Amino acid sequence: MTAYVRRAPADYPSGMSSAPVPTTASARTPAYRRLSVAERRSQLLASALTLFAHRAPEDVSLDDVAEAAGVSRPLVYRYFPGGKQQLYEAALRSAADELERCFDEPPTGPLTERLGRALDRYLAFVDSHDTGFAALLQGGSVVSTSRTTAIVDEVRRSAAASILGHMPVSAPGPRLHLLVRMWIAAVEAASLIWLDEGKQPPAAELRDWLLDQFVAQLTASAASDAQTAEVLRSALALERADGPAGSLARRVLPVLGEAGRLR
Amino acid sequence: MTAYVRRAPADYPSGMSSAPVPTTASARTPAYRRLSVAERRSQLLASALTLFAHRAPEDVSLDDVAEAAGVSRPLVYRYFPGGKQQLYEAALRSAADELERCFDEPPTGPLTERLGRALDRYLAFVDSHDTGFAALLQGGSVVSTSRTTAIVDEVRRSAAASILGHMPVSAPGPRLHLLVRMWIAAVEAASLIWLDEGKQPPAAELRDWLLDQFVAQLTASAASDAQTAEVLRSALALERADGPAGSLARRVLPVLGEAGRLR
Repeated sequence: MTAYVRRAPADYPSGMSSAPVPTTASARTPAYRRLSVAERRSQLLASALTLFAHRAPEDVSLDDVAEAAGVSRPLVYRYFPGGKQQLYEAALRSAADELERCFDEPPTGPLTERLGRALDRYLAFVDSHDTGFAALLQGGSVVSTSRTTAIVDEVRRSAAASILGHMPVSAPGPRLHLLVRMWIAAVEAASLIWLDEGKQPPAAELRDWLLDQFVAQLTASAASDAQTAEVLRSALALERADGPAGSLARRVLPVLGEAGRLR
Repeated sequence: MTAYVRRAPADYPSGMSSAPVPTTASARTPAYRRLSVAERRSQLLASALTLFAHRAPEDVSLDDVAEAAGVSRPLVYRYFPGGKQQLYEAALRSAADELERCFDEPPTGPLTERLGRALDRYLAFVDSHDTGFAALLQGGSVVSTSRTTAIVDEVRRSAAASILGHMPVSAPGPRLHLLVRMWIAAVEAASLIWLDEGKQPPAAELRDWLLDQFVAQLTASAASDAQTAEVLRSALALERADGPAGSLARRVLPVLGEAGRLR
């Protein structure tokens, strides 16, 4: 998708064209593909994202990024004068945008099927950004700062808002909020464990299991919160017997024999 | 609990008694209580913990710790030559030990009641270490490193091992592991939200809600995993009708009317 466009100003981010650039660097490096500023920036970010996805941030150098993008290290610095930290944050910002889009889903059909499609996209993202995803969420990395934490938190909030937006309720109360944010935290934890265990079980199986968990958590919360009970009722009315909720209902009954005595 | 013991070697951690200490510092500061090395270290850690519990780590200085402990800054340095980072890690280590003890619970009685007592202790810990707890888990702090992350992860693993130890199974499989670690992640998220919301609802209500979630998650997982189903069966056999599981069973039935159609 990279267009080879020859035009000025190329390779000079706006406001930086007069910055002193070592001429030796330009002399030594091979002729650059002349991309527009936006194209070059995207290309560098894409190279950085690929590297950050497969190695811990501390194991990625600016030289690695330059090499992967087929450019010189000074060129990388021209676009990201803040060096690795700035590049990491920009790559993270771009990954965060991609993650947030996982939860874009039309508001039609059963809730579990919408959520299932979002989970499929989310798990595909985790799969393709494995090491970077783990480093990002596990924190304590040399490049994690309050800014990177804020980006991650924004993704969590955005995912929670998307999920709440799919619920048939105009003003979700504190229990629904808590429930959704707890489920998101649990899904994150499950993703990290999934990566740790060599991506076992298969993604589709993990998705079904996470959907089961969601339905169960919604049900338990409905047992003590009137608004959640109303959401559950409306959501169940749209579910299909051959969908995730129907499947769970049939599988749960046999394991609850012992509970009859507790009623 | 601070004992006033006069004895040598006081205020000199072992192996450091010959370290050069600025005499001006000792001359200027008020006469120290002569504590043993271990007592002084505990006292400094306790002061640091109290400060770290109520402020973000970046807002705590060594001077603050010295002042809170009623000692000089050089004395704090004598015990923690690595400065604030070392003191933070030592305080974190001590808090982690305390957190791990929350999950010590005799293996008798219904599972939900054991877990409920552990949650009571855990929420009391969160309540008393609020700001520090949040800073710790949210990461991105100036003092978070791979070592602090490792300490936090160790607490998570230890809590998971304790909870799995209460389950009537000798070798918990991957699904039970995943379930327990997901629940722990969800409880952490809930604790942070609880702190954010001014500790509402009351801790006992949050505890009951978290127990409901646990039972629901165990049940949903039992629907697709034979070992979890066996654990659920044995656990339910110990539950009391007037306990958490019985209460949930009675409250869940009325909200599941719509699900009957899905079977």
